[in-house]
Amino acid sequence: MCLPGARVYNVRMLAEILSVGTELLLGTTLNTNARYLAERLAEISVDVHRHVTVGDNPARLRAAFEEASRRADLIITTGGLGPTEDDVTMASFAAFAGLGLRRDPRTIGHITRQLARRGKQLTPLIERQSLVPVGARIFQNPVGTAPAVLARVRRRERTVHALLLPGPPREMRPLYRIARAHLVRLTPRSRRTVFVVRRIRITGPTEAEVASHVPDLLKLPPPLTVGIYAKPGEVELRAMCKARTRPAADRALSRIERDVRRRLGPAVYGTGESDLPAVVGELLHRSRMTLATAESCTGGLLSKLLTDVPGSSSYFLGGVVSYHDRIKRRFLGVPAALLKRHGAVSRQVALRMAAEARRRFGSDVAVAITGVAGPAGGSAIKPVGSVHIALADRRGARCELYRFTGNREDVRARAAHKALDLLRLRLLVQR
Amino acid sequence: MCLPGARVYNVRMLAEILSVGTELLLGTTLNTNARYLAERLAEISVDVHRHVTVGDNPARLRAAFEEASRRADLIITTGGLGPTEDDVTMASFAAFAGLGLRRDPRTIGHITRQLARRGKQLTPLIERQSLVPVGARIFQNPVGTAPAVLARVRRRERTVHALLLPGPPREMRPLYRIARAHLVRLTPRSRRTVFVVRRIRITGPTEAEVASHVPDLLKLPPPLTVGIYAKPGEVELRAMCKARTRPAADRALSRIERDVRRRLGPAVYGTGESDLPAVVGELLHRSRMTLATAESCTGGLLSKLLTDVPGSSSYFLGGVVSYHDRIKRRFLGVPAALLKRHGAVSRQVALRMAAEARRRFGSDVAVAITGVAGPAGGSAIKPVGSVHIALADRRGARCELYRFTGNREDVRARAAHKALDLLRLRLLVQR
Repeated sequence: MCLPGARVYNVRMLAEILSVGTELLLGTTLNTNARYLAERLAEISVDVHRHVTVGDNPARLRAAFEEASRRADLIITTGGLGPTEDDVTMASFAAFAGLGLRRDPRTIGHITRQLARRGKQLTPLIERQSLVPVGARIFQNPVGTAPAVLARVRRRERTVHALLLPGPPREMRPLYRIARAHLVRLTPRSRRTVFVVRRIRITGPTEAEVASHVPDLLKLPPPLTVGIYAKPGEVELRAMCKARTRPAADRALSRIERDVRRRLGPAVYGTGESDLPAVVGELLHRSRMTLATAESCTGGLLSKLLTDVPGSSSYFLGGVVSYHDRIKRRFLGVPAALLKRHGAVSRQVALRMAAEARRRFGSDVAVAITGVAGPAGGSAIKPVGSVHIALADRRGARCELYRFTGNREDVRARAAHKALDLLRLRLLVQR
Repeated sequence: MCLPGARVYNVRMLAEILSVGTELLLGTTLNTNARYLAERLAEISVDVHRHVTVGDNPARLRAAFEEASRRADLIITTGGLGPTEDDVTMASFAAFAGLGLRRDPRTIGHITRQLARRGKQLTPLIERQSLVPVGARIFQNPVGTAPAVLARVRRRERTVHALLLPGPPREMRPLYRIARAHLVRLTPRSRRTVFVVRRIRITGPTEAEVASHVPDLLKLPPPLTVGIYAKPGEVELRAMCKARTRPAADRALSRIERDVRRRLGPAVYGTGESDLPAVVGELLHRSRMTLATAESCTGGLLSKLLTDVPGSSSYFLGGVVSYHDRIKRRFLGVPAALLKRHGAVSRQVALRMAAEARRRFGSDVAVAITGVAGPAGGSAIKPVGSVHIALADRRGARCELYRFTGNREDVRARAAHKALDLLRLRLLVQR
């Protein structure tokens, strides 16, 4: 559909991601770098066929380089570029590649300036970070001292490229972005393709329900494919396209997106990185409406999510976390008799909380949540996971009862998510 | 110190973790299984020397088994045990091991019962999950259908064990726990050791400051070692001990913990899995004091963290998220003149918010937070990251000004964390 002539696939770069660090091997640190690089390499149509993690051990690291060089055209390492004796990636790579290490004056200058910004001086230990393989391309670290290195190695009649990146994600990521253009150029221009992903975000229906609306899309053959992923409170359709150019990929993905929106309607809440709080915020902002919250079992989670969004102060006035019944009475005027008759987890109390929050905060809309998050507090009539969510606006207040599954954290997250979605649907139908 | 006779180390099991799944290779899914297993294997003194991730590809998977079997005594795989054609781990393992696959009636029975619980019937596709290698030990899946398998393979005069686990963490983890005792028994009793980790959690001082108090501990040689890890808002000293028995390890770790507490005083806020909200909750619970919050820039994050703790309703009454100045006036009685003269981000407003929250909620203690989380809203006098945190109790109210660094999310997280720590220190000095 968007890449006629599939022969191109057979000549793409094969890459291997080599994560270095005993803390990764022991599980002390979660390896997020391999995932980040895998996603980025897919974008530039580099095929990753293996991730390997080894400790800070020169012999094992060198063996990993040897093995990877037999399989891959590109090896990307992260970690082991720090200043201490434990950091052996540069030396192990040089030994594997048969390259000498040289002290790079430009890197020494950069490190000295980076240290000076923090009021520190160059030490012999840190100066070790200026040792780089002879002939390699050097990328200076914008947020730290260890440079990244891109080198070319001849092995058994083949050329293998290696990109060595530091381990801390906040240093690795900007250095990858700097080196990216050079990685793209490793593939001959005539063979380059782009790989573009569009995330279509859906809330409301289950994964199976979404799948039943788009069975044909989920079976599309490359170069245009669609995957389905369930996440807490939402489902994502990930449309992916390989094409010769970015505009060609974008056109194909837009066709898919329009098709999905036609089939699923308002259950599609957005695309890309915008999450539900951001989408709700955008709707409130555009309609110039203000919002207040009254939370019981979610304990502030809903207002936390709303205020995660920069600029939320333009539409979010505030909220009350009425964890104790006394607070429901005092701050939201919920009558003691109502609490006594129906209990705090009831439709009546939720409706009153929403209406009173709207009145007292003077907002256009208010949302109230009251429920049993667990692990204790459940009963036969109101089991753990029972949550009432009420929404009040100028036309009155409505309330829905949900039964969420999972542990305390799940129930709270699902309740807050559902409240955001009710808000979104309310804001869609009438501004 | 706790394991005289270090010869034991040379005969420990070497393990390799093999994660299977194209979604891991592409970075669509973050690999948390490798980390989980690495941590668990350390506990039973199995040395993990490599993690490998490959896609759902029979040839590459078999090659990965071959390579791992040359290096390791134990191979643990996760993923690729599902019912679809993409799931090739079991067949690839059988091919590598030269073992036939048989249909296991007990597993068919278990799968049928699991499906019945969800109102579903056995299909030929799902029945594929009952194919297991001849001679292998089978562990039934308590939360799903795919069983785990433990098999023994002879390779080049050596015995290699393989444990095949499903990929979804909620299935993998319970199955690992079931198989764990069998893994322990793979090491001869005389060579078994335990590896115990104690996390000593510290808040207040920086990583460098903590290190300067315990330089000798950070250099301890095995079998008793101490590592230092910086995390958002806290520092962790991880004391690790290998010993013949659990009590011996615990004694050695308790000595270390006492030593650290003596040197760092109340900066040590706890050990193990209890985080700051749980520790604050425990202190409130024990002193029978109640708490209320008044949040501006943190937007509900503080009360969200407090109510993450099960049972928090016994001490947390509630809070106000006074995001808009009008709400500070209306719900907390902060005078308009005070807001006008000093601004919402000021010591005066923070103190008033805390004192009024305490009075209006009728709590023993109240905490108030007002600041500039960014990205907008900063000024030369009140730059982004400026946060006032006030604490009110029966003796009056105090306020501290902080300048937190980082983005909006960092500033909000650090402010909420610091508020929790101020509360903790207040509750420690006087109950």
